[in-house]
Amino acid sequence: MTGKKKSAHASIEAMYRVFTVPEAPDSTLSRIDQNISNNLAGFLQEHIVAVERDLSDVEKNFSDSSIPEKPVFVSEQTQFLLDKLVANSVHTASPSFIGHMTSALPYFMLPLSKIMIALNQNLVKTETSKAFTPMERQVLGMIHRLVYKQDGAFYRKWMHDPRHSLGAMCSGGTVANLTALWVARNRAFPAEGSFRGLHQEGLFRALRYYGHEGAAVLVSSRGHYSLRKAADVLGLGRDFLVPVPTDDDNRIQTDALREKCLELQKQKIKVMAICGVAGTTETGNVDPLEAMADIAREFGAHFHVDAAWGGPTLFSRQHAHLLKGIEQADSVTFDAHKQLYTPMGAGLVVFRDPGLSSAVEHHAQYIIRKGSRDLGSTTLEGSRPGMAMLIHSGLKILAREGYEILINEGIAKARRFADLIDARDDFELISRPELNILTYRYCPARVQRALALADPLQQERLNTGLNRVTKFIQKTQRERGKAFVSRTRLEPVAYQRFPCIVFRVVLANPLTTDEILRDILSEQAELAREAGIADEMAILEEITRTVLAGQEGGEDLRSRA
Amino acid sequence: MTGKKKSAHASIEAMYRVFTVPEAPDSTLSRIDQNISNNLAGFLQEHIVAVERDLSDVEKNFSDSSIPEKPVFVSEQTQFLLDKLVANSVHTASPSFIGHMTSALPYFMLPLSKIMIALNQNLVKTETSKAFTPMERQVLGMIHRLVYKQDGAFYRKWMHDPRHSLGAMCSGGTVANLTALWVARNRAFPAEGSFRGLHQEGLFRALRYYGHEGAAVLVSSRGHYSLRKAADVLGLGRDFLVPVPTDDDNRIQTDALREKCLELQKQKIKVMAICGVAGTTETGNVDPLEAMADIAREFGAHFHVDAAWGGPTLFSRQHAHLLKGIEQADSVTFDAHKQLYTPMGAGLVVFRDPGLSSAVEHHAQYIIRKGSRDLGSTTLEGSRPGMAMLIHSGLKILAREGYEILINEGIAKARRFADLIDARDDFELISRPELNILTYRYCPARVQRALALADPLQQERLNTGLNRVTKFIQKTQRERGKAFVSRTRLEPVAYQRFPCIVFRVVLANPLTTDEILRDILSEQAELAREAGIADEMAILEEITRTVLAGQEGGEDLRSRA
Repeated sequence: MTGKKKSAHASIEAMYRVFTVPEAPDSTLSRIDQNISNNLAGFLQEHIVAVERDLSDVEKNFSDSSIPEKPVFVSEQTQFLLDKLVANSVHTASPSFIGHMTSALPYFMLPLSKIMIALNQNLVKTETSKAFTPMERQVLGMIHRLVYKQDGAFYRKWMHDPRHSLGAMCSGGTVANLTALWVARNRAFPAEGSFRGLHQEGLFRALRYYGHEGAAVLVSSRGHYSLRKAADVLGLGRDFLVPVPTDDDNRIQTDALREKCLELQKQKIKVMAICGVAGTTETGNVDPLEAMADIAREFGAHFHVDAAWGGPTLFSRQHAHLLKGIEQADSVTFDAHKQLYTPMGAGLVVFRDPGLSSAVEHHAQYIIRKGSRDLGSTTLEGSRPGMAMLIHSGLKILAREGYEILINEGIAKARRFADLIDARDDFELISRPELNILTYRYCPARVQRALALADPLQQERLNTGLNRVTKFIQKTQRERGKAFVSRTRLEPVAYQRFPCIVFRVVLANPLTTDEILRDILSEQAELAREAGIADEMAILEEITRTVLAGQEGGEDLRSRA
Repeated sequence: MTGKKKSAHASIEAMYRVFTVPEAPDSTLSRIDQNISNNLAGFLQEHIVAVERDLSDVEKNFSDSSIPEKPVFVSEQTQFLLDKLVANSVHTASPSFIGHMTSALPYFMLPLSKIMIALNQNLVKTETSKAFTPMERQVLGMIHRLVYKQDGAFYRKWMHDPRHSLGAMCSGGTVANLTALWVARNRAFPAEGSFRGLHQEGLFRALRYYGHEGAAVLVSSRGHYSLRKAADVLGLGRDFLVPVPTDDDNRIQTDALREKCLELQKQKIKVMAICGVAGTTETGNVDPLEAMADIAREFGAHFHVDAAWGGPTLFSRQHAHLLKGIEQADSVTFDAHKQLYTPMGAGLVVFRDPGLSSAVEHHAQYIIRKGSRDLGSTTLEGSRPGMAMLIHSGLKILAREGYEILINEGIAKARRFADLIDARDDFELISRPELNILTYRYCPARVQRALALADPLQQERLNTGLNRVTKFIQKTQRERGKAFVSRTRLEPVAYQRFPCIVFRVVLANPLTTDEILRDILSEQAELAREAGIADEMAILEEITRTVLAGQEGGEDLRSRA
């Protein structure tokens, strides 16, 4: 053997070891692995630094664009990840992280995920997934039944029927919504006469054949941005995602919806789909789904419900009624990585009619052949991991009762938090919780009084000032790292739909206590007194004084008259 | 406390425990977890049953469509998963599983995945991902640099620029291809004059404004089915995914491509994109990318390269030249869960021009606000897991050298396998490996001789018979569970493009030995002698005898004359 050949051989051996020899039990990686298994909360608490570092600073650790020539040791990379990545990641499982839809995970999800990854199945076809395929079909069936409540015979007939699918597993709610609207679009322009269907001939010929000038999707102005993205992807154009105004409670105005539909019809624009929202992302409100179903029927439109957040409310006997009408939807989006408490990367869409998925069916020669059980024939994605296993385990181990407790507790907690806010005179509740989401802002009692008395221009100036304060508090609180609430912009009816920046709170983590909520408000109130926002507060106070003085002056005049 | 209230409280406590108390070290789940850490191969070997059970039989374990009312114990569910799911899953990591693109994983991927899942970051926005965001940008930069070889200054300028993105991380190659074509479509019909761009006004108005009758994507007839799916999703219509014939080596015929482009132009159909394939899924061939880049330029079309499989060939100094021209592509798809050896669910697309991603940029109020660093503003998906961490670790721990060895070894092994097939007289190589993929079929020497002499009708009959035999062998071998090769249908030029069923082999698992390859061929040859296929073999022999006799008769006659 020549020297060169020998060294090449040695490298192949090294590569062989990488695939066959586990990390030693005392290696850095094994110790972390063990640490996470024994005490995840402790691991996260210990390794994630609380105080935020500036992102441009963090970027320095990830600035090399070259792939290294020579391997680094596993322990070296692990230490790097620990110091530079984990340390500067976000403690999404923290009970005081109540700003987004990522919560703590049930403990069993961790070892189960490891089994899933070790098996490394690919759900696009049965040849690389076997039992995972019927399991995924079962999960789709279970969620279908939760939503549509068909009888056992229905599921015996359809759940495992290779030519049909009760839904599609997706990487998340965005792809689920896109899949639903893809189905809706193709079904709105089916083959007929000389026309071979939109899926085959495209949108341009479809609209021409059917004599339309466009195809629209209607959703409340609180609809998720993924729907606008879907309108773009599907070729409809973002203009054709038509927003419909909401009422005081962020629910779609059904009169306005019907009017919009009529208006579109007059413009020869096909009302392709109407989307109900079951848990708006920003305020957690649920659209009047029953009335929307009626309107969808009237216009022959596909009725989709985006229940990515609120879907699991169906587990709660106390609150399920909020989603009444969801069973009339043609398709429903669910996110498993939200309130089914699986790790990131699992969403799904279910179809009322098992025949619906055929609108997007496709085949290939080497897999997903016609007649096969391969799930890949009706999913937007191709290769996919076996996340269904984690949903299945959640549904079995937490069961309906477990999810009910989580849902009920979240909503109850949101109401208690709303009460806390109401009880204080320095905060203003902007949207009262219907599910477990609410919004509010910092607004001292005096300013609240001024807002009620101000003329439109003064009101705008006050709200602009409050926006700056709320934004400052939210950013600073996040940076300090003790707690996190998110922020968004709403257009409250009470303020003539002026865009108001608000705190947004999502209460899905069962480990969040009322104590934590009280502390969050206290910290926010303290932050409002910091030097960094003092100038803004002074301006706000000045406008407030003017308004109140003017008003008092006015009152004085009137009383004098 | 009333009894009812007490029990509700107890349940909340139970739920609290689910989120805070890890499985006991001696629990079923912990033991499996440990088992996988210590000896993954042993775990898979022990728990996955080798012999295939019929899927309709497996389905019985997943037939209940009701979500259970009461929780089951973690241990109970774990035992169920072990007996019913794991046992009947596919041993994708097995060295004799050489039929699909799923291989063994480097050992370090398992504990690293657990860290990723424990952190449960959401890459859509920095508020739920922090350091993961720069890390993902770095990974995109690294792959970008591997493909486009820009200098350090380029990456210092663009890699972390919040207003730009060098690519998009995706759940897999399908979404990556879709993202690339979404960008291509929107850029083909930009805002101009009174037209506000396809993304805004939709495909119908875009085509009308620009005076086109359609928009087409051209790819060789060996292109991945995800491109046809993308043509459907994007509203172009499947008809507008225009297949171009390939040469004997499954590479696109560039003359035919150019002609097709001219033909489409004449029909007023916009040549929107041309897709090169760098590693066809079925045969592993690479299109002549340089020539295609020229044609794309000539027609002002977006040039996309689907390198989902073959991209990592760029790591090999020996073989990188096969992909020459890829650096001229506007966009390139890479799959990490293929030859970057990460677990399932990681693909990406990179864009040559950092400005490209703006064609699909979108924003929302509560996240991905304008000017933020949030990666979600240019991805098709919304919430996404931190898979970039696993790619990052692969690139560091295996490094260029490690990936080079894997690539070189795979290609060398494929060539040796082709030699093995050539050396036997009962198999016929259908596509010679260019990368690490090849196809062949069972075809005894006598039949091969007959095929060469047969008239077109006889040849069809022979190929039909061979198709049945190859299909039988492939299915039976899979069911027996010792080895797995996949099958597909090709149209070899040598057989007047008659659809031939072939075995398809992908040699990416470094643990696959030549011994295993020899055994696979031996088993296949034995299966051809089984009773289940005896009738077909008899018919095949009869046609063969007729052809050879006729020919020999003919020869006899000629020699007598």
